[in-house]
Amino acid sequence: MNETTITAQPGTPFIDIVREFDAPPALVFRAWTDPELVPQWLGASGTTTTLIEYEVVPGGRYSYVHRDRAGEHGFRGVFHTVVAGERIVQTFQYDGRPHDVSLETLIFEDLGGRTRVRTHAVFGSVDSRDAMIESGMEHGVRDSMARLDRLLTR
Amino acid sequence: MNETTITAQPGTPFIDIVREFDAPPALVFRAWTDPELVPQWLGASGTTTTLIEYEVVPGGRYSYVHRDRAGEHGFRGVFHTVVAGERIVQTFQYDGRPHDVSLETLIFEDLGGRTRVRTHAVFGSVDSRDAMIESGMEHGVRDSMARLDRLLTR
Repeated sequence: MNETTITAQPGTPFIDIVREFDAPPALVFRAWTDPELVPQWLGASGTTTTLIEYEVVPGGRYSYVHRDRAGEHGFRGVFHTVVAGERIVQTFQYDGRPHDVSLETLIFEDLGGRTRVRTHAVFGSVDSRDAMIESGMEHGVRDSMARLDRLLTR
Repeated sequence: MNETTITAQPGTPFIDIVREFDAPPALVFRAWTDPELVPQWLGASGTTTTLIEYEVVPGGRYSYVHRDRAGEHGFRGVFHTVVAGERIVQTFQYDGRPHDVSLETLIFEDLGGRTRVRTHAVFGSVDSRDAMIESGMEHGVRDSMARLDRLLTR
């Protein structure tokens, strides 16, 4: 069973997420970037995800809405770097906190048929990073990674 | 005489730049975003700046080249947030170090006919921030701010 590691060192503005998948980088990258596939895994269990925009090219924008029984939450960002199967650099914003934009670097590491995805997120301040942790993002990330794992091995 | 303050606290991934201008936010914002005006102030003295792209809208891209006697250097990024006269959130990359992307938040504060521009930049690591400081960016920033000051009071 693959596990998701989430690290947020106290006093830093960083969050690091590491997850391995039993599928090659080309497949993991496709699941991460194909607008047909993303709603099938992104979000906590019990959440419906609707993509509004999702154009994975430098300068492309994305936005999506998570809906659950409690309500809905919007997210958005732009893509700075896109190297197919290897690397994405993107901004990230939760519309409920539009002044807390973060920058995420995703690296798809080839483990020989398997893939390690490393996400490094950096926030504008330690407080902004702490607010994201306190929002309960950890639960959503772990659920999303487990759902993606199941999609890839289907 | 307005002065440029550049702060880079040791051990953090942040750079903060503060500068006041003797012009209202609408004018400062225009000089910052109009592709005709940007090459007139962006870059150290003795540098020629050529914009390749410069589309200041969310998802818009920018790229430009600084040329001096020593050679040329390319820079690029994408705009995440654009609120005219108030706020810009953008990514920033020096093409010589494409893995050191930073995220910049610019705030145009209205001082009543004058403007304070605050730039907060955050890097993926302290080392990446330190490398940017060591590249001599401070000289380029101070010259650019002084050139913009002269353009605005012309």
